[in-house]
Amino acid sequence: MSSRPTRIVVIGGSAAGLKAAAKARRTDEFASITLIQREPELSMASCGLLHDAVGGNVGDHDLLVCAPAEAVRDPMLFGEAKGFEAKVETEALHIDRQAKTVSVQDLASGAQDQLPYDRLVIATGAAPMHLDVPGIELEGVHTLHSVGDAEALQKVCKQKRTRKAVVVGGGLIGLEVCKALRLARIDTRLVEKNERILQFLDAELARLVEMHLDSRDVEVLLGNGIARFIGKHGRLTGVELTDGNELACQLAVLAVGVQPNVSLAKAAGLEIGTLGGIRVNDFMQTSDPDIFAVGDCVECKSLITGRPIRAPYGDTAKLQGRVAGQNLIKPESARFPGVTHTGIYRFFDYTIGFTGLSEQRARAEGFTNIETVTVSGLDMPVFQQGELLISKMLADRDSGRILGYQCIGPGDASKRVVTVAMAIRGKLSVEDLAHADLPYAPPYSLALDHGIVAAHALENKLEGRMQGISINEVKQRIDSRADSFFLDMRSPLEFDEMRLGIGETLIPLAALRDCLDELPEDKDREIILYCKTSLRGYEGAAILQQHGWKNVKIMEGGLVAWPYARAK
Amino acid sequence: MSSRPTRIVVIGGSAAGLKAAAKARRTDEFASITLIQREPELSMASCGLLHDAVGGNVGDHDLLVCAPAEAVRDPMLFGEAKGFEAKVETEALHIDRQAKTVSVQDLASGAQDQLPYDRLVIATGAAPMHLDVPGIELEGVHTLHSVGDAEALQKVCKQKRTRKAVVVGGGLIGLEVCKALRLARIDTRLVEKNERILQFLDAELARLVEMHLDSRDVEVLLGNGIARFIGKHGRLTGVELTDGNELACQLAVLAVGVQPNVSLAKAAGLEIGTLGGIRVNDFMQTSDPDIFAVGDCVECKSLITGRPIRAPYGDTAKLQGRVAGQNLIKPESARFPGVTHTGIYRFFDYTIGFTGLSEQRARAEGFTNIETVTVSGLDMPVFQQGELLISKMLADRDSGRILGYQCIGPGDASKRVVTVAMAIRGKLSVEDLAHADLPYAPPYSLALDHGIVAAHALENKLEGRMQGISINEVKQRIDSRADSFFLDMRSPLEFDEMRLGIGETLIPLAALRDCLDELPEDKDREIILYCKTSLRGYEGAAILQQHGWKNVKIMEGGLVAWPYARAK
Repeated sequence: MSSRPTRIVVIGGSAAGLKAAAKARRTDEFASITLIQREPELSMASCGLLHDAVGGNVGDHDLLVCAPAEAVRDPMLFGEAKGFEAKVETEALHIDRQAKTVSVQDLASGAQDQLPYDRLVIATGAAPMHLDVPGIELEGVHTLHSVGDAEALQKVCKQKRTRKAVVVGGGLIGLEVCKALRLARIDTRLVEKNERILQFLDAELARLVEMHLDSRDVEVLLGNGIARFIGKHGRLTGVELTDGNELACQLAVLAVGVQPNVSLAKAAGLEIGTLGGIRVNDFMQTSDPDIFAVGDCVECKSLITGRPIRAPYGDTAKLQGRVAGQNLIKPESARFPGVTHTGIYRFFDYTIGFTGLSEQRARAEGFTNIETVTVSGLDMPVFQQGELLISKMLADRDSGRILGYQCIGPGDASKRVVTVAMAIRGKLSVEDLAHADLPYAPPYSLALDHGIVAAHALENKLEGRMQGISINEVKQRIDSRADSFFLDMRSPLEFDEMRLGIGETLIPLAALRDCLDELPEDKDREIILYCKTSLRGYEGAAILQQHGWKNVKIMEGGLVAWPYARAK
Repeated sequence: MSSRPTRIVVIGGSAAGLKAAAKARRTDEFASITLIQREPELSMASCGLLHDAVGGNVGDHDLLVCAPAEAVRDPMLFGEAKGFEAKVETEALHIDRQAKTVSVQDLASGAQDQLPYDRLVIATGAAPMHLDVPGIELEGVHTLHSVGDAEALQKVCKQKRTRKAVVVGGGLIGLEVCKALRLARIDTRLVEKNERILQFLDAELARLVEMHLDSRDVEVLLGNGIARFIGKHGRLTGVELTDGNELACQLAVLAVGVQPNVSLAKAAGLEIGTLGGIRVNDFMQTSDPDIFAVGDCVECKSLITGRPIRAPYGDTAKLQGRVAGQNLIKPESARFPGVTHTGIYRFFDYTIGFTGLSEQRARAEGFTNIETVTVSGLDMPVFQQGELLISKMLADRDSGRILGYQCIGPGDASKRVVTVAMAIRGKLSVEDLAHADLPYAPPYSLALDHGIVAAHALENKLEGRMQGISINEVKQRIDSRADSFFLDMRSPLEFDEMRLGIGETLIPLAALRDCLDELPEDKDREIILYCKTSLRGYEGAAILQQHGWKNVKIMEGGLVAWPYARAK
């Protein structure tokens, strides 16, 4: 032990910073650890919970700042229990790397101070991006990031004059705000500048979520932005969109994304990465080996591409904090290997989960030889009230390695995302996953779990046993009046209840072998098969292929994944 | 294509056989495929569902034989849809490997026939073991395996004279029967010959399940067997136990395990493995390359030990059937790599899940340098109605590789078992898992998921940062009046509500640094710390160690995992 205790300063008291401080404390009981934060509370559970609070789901302030061990994260209690000093409502102004000090200011008194450090942790998080449009300063224009923001918004929602709201930005936080506003019975529209919401999903899945928004009476305006906020007496009355239309509203919530808070790091001359986050190595060290950075303000390494990626998620923040906390005391003793980039989100009855790369992202990252599959199915058996899931899995054709997975629907997407996230972490191929035994019993899954079925379908495609066509491509065929032969393989009863009405032919799977003469004489004509989930479509395709039809495709995901209008 | 279609015969129409037939059909539309089965229905969902039916949870016979595609597995419908002939109520009598024929008998007419095959699949499953004790033939002594068994048992449960029942065997099926009987309001006792139930769990976790049985008014009699069944007029009136005691009952259900049905394979001279299952290679071929075997009648390969293991689970059966089905048509084109040995089970409000090896099993398999950890925690945040989970994880000290995981409790054990099962499949180390990013949002998990926390704790133990003691060892310390110092780290409020009362000292974590003088002067004395989940115990231990106490241990799992009597 050195004669003088190691002095550690942590800037930022949310998930990553707190974890770093706590881990450092456990590693060295005698280090001097000071945590500084602008907000009055430590460790806000800023994911989801915060936003749920807007809709009144969580009314109790204490629950918002509650630690798993049921101890409210009161700075004083923390100081005692965790053994470090927590300076809240304190701002870090400047880092002097030569002198190894941080200048801080008490926000209440304005008093400034210099904190010397041996090792410093930057955990400054991310901040919501703002729009540079006129009227942004009007009363009624909000962002949502801190507990304070949530409380302010909650107050606005309770005011009777807030009848109509516009949410700007169709990312996760935008959706979360839509949900909260709908729960507060406020008329809500979502404006998204891209042609679809949720950029981390591929378009066809994002389209299904748009339908779910629609079913919850949230109107989605795509490919549109805010030209200006309109006000009267300093108070918001509406927005003008980039297409010239105006929407009346008393509340606008900006959720156009977050960006890493790197100003302090930048001013100190620390390296900033290409994605705008602080660059760190596997030890969570910045370009200054005595300064660490963790959480939403840094760039991670993707385990799939090996390249930088931003992963502003609570679990990643804590995992990084744990690594940094240990390295603060025992240099280079722990490594953070990188992320699969995994997230999940609940939107009303829908779960939206993902891990790894979307197809769009994979192509942008330079994967040119990709195979994908979309499957629909239940999470559990019918008699266990199984619910629908729709998934897309993708793999690299050359190596067979799984690159990504998206899973949405009312069913338990979480477990399936875990399955594939762990497969990606283990660098498994589709074939590896296709043979995975999982915990099976009827209350938990089908015998072949939804995630395994996706691997089977993808393996069938990779090995040329199945040819699929995405629903979007089918829609294009219909719109362009292509000469495809559409074959619905369900029962007449199912057909009566619901059908596309695109000139399809109905032949139930069980009758297919007896009805081959109803199929196109031209064996090269494109035949597109489907059923409810396209499981029967798959069986039908195998039959037709072996009877000589050469261009047989299964509409992936089946009718339950159809996000467009239909005849019935 | 050969001039004559390939002739395939599949013996057994449950999960594995059906899957093999269906996959073969999809791979070769023109093969001649015949499936034979003794039972009248195909593909009984024999896991769980069957047993639930006993308690009346599933009343509808059609639901019991329902396929995921919502088509009742009627043999005729199957013949049409899947394109193979299903001969039900037909028994396979003999395999002639030279002539390549199977002799079969129609159970209704008694007529015999010879079915020629090019490739044969044996999917004869497993059968319940019987007890060789007097009185086994009495009316009222049941086993539970087929739909017929379940229906018979269901009928018995509805009879008013069935007031008391004895279930023999504390495995999964035994517990399932206990649940069903309790739901039917029958007085139920469970007799188990070993000193604990659920041999696949380690003793301390099995003990917690025993407590749950107790809370559901199922009396558990351990280390006891059946000497004889007692009857009157051919009808069961009681059982005599091996300890001489008698229990009155009108119903006894035997659930003493299953054994692979290998008589047909054995008679045909096929190799049988050391565990009593049919030996197969990675292609699911038996010692005769034209004969495949799949499902509960075979031995699998453990991915952990590389040695044979039995894994009679529905998902494994289907995965094997899929591999065999493809190889039937395209020889050696698919490999089944082996199993992690993963299972799950719901017992009332409790989920019991496992993957890989238990500690006991690992030691039996020759792993001598093992580290284990037990942790307790919630599956989700408190404000999301998080429920308790108790887990044990083990790893090989030399390689760091995860060897197994058990997870039980009212929380969602399933997702955590999936996490570790996939980690084992990817041959991940504890360190790899400790850094895994998973889908986190408050409705789905804590930021650091229960499975990740277990990996953190195990990593801490492997790297010497934490010294644990199992609850069973603590109990031994208490019973032997060892000179350990017991330190409860909770709040006075929690202590008032519930405590062990073993002479422990209460020092809340936050006060520990100020109360070091209340601790033993002898720095070598064993100090055992705990709290509700031992999370605070962990923090306390770090403090004490760094203040010079050398023998500080955390009671793993904490008070929520304490399965013995306590003062309050």
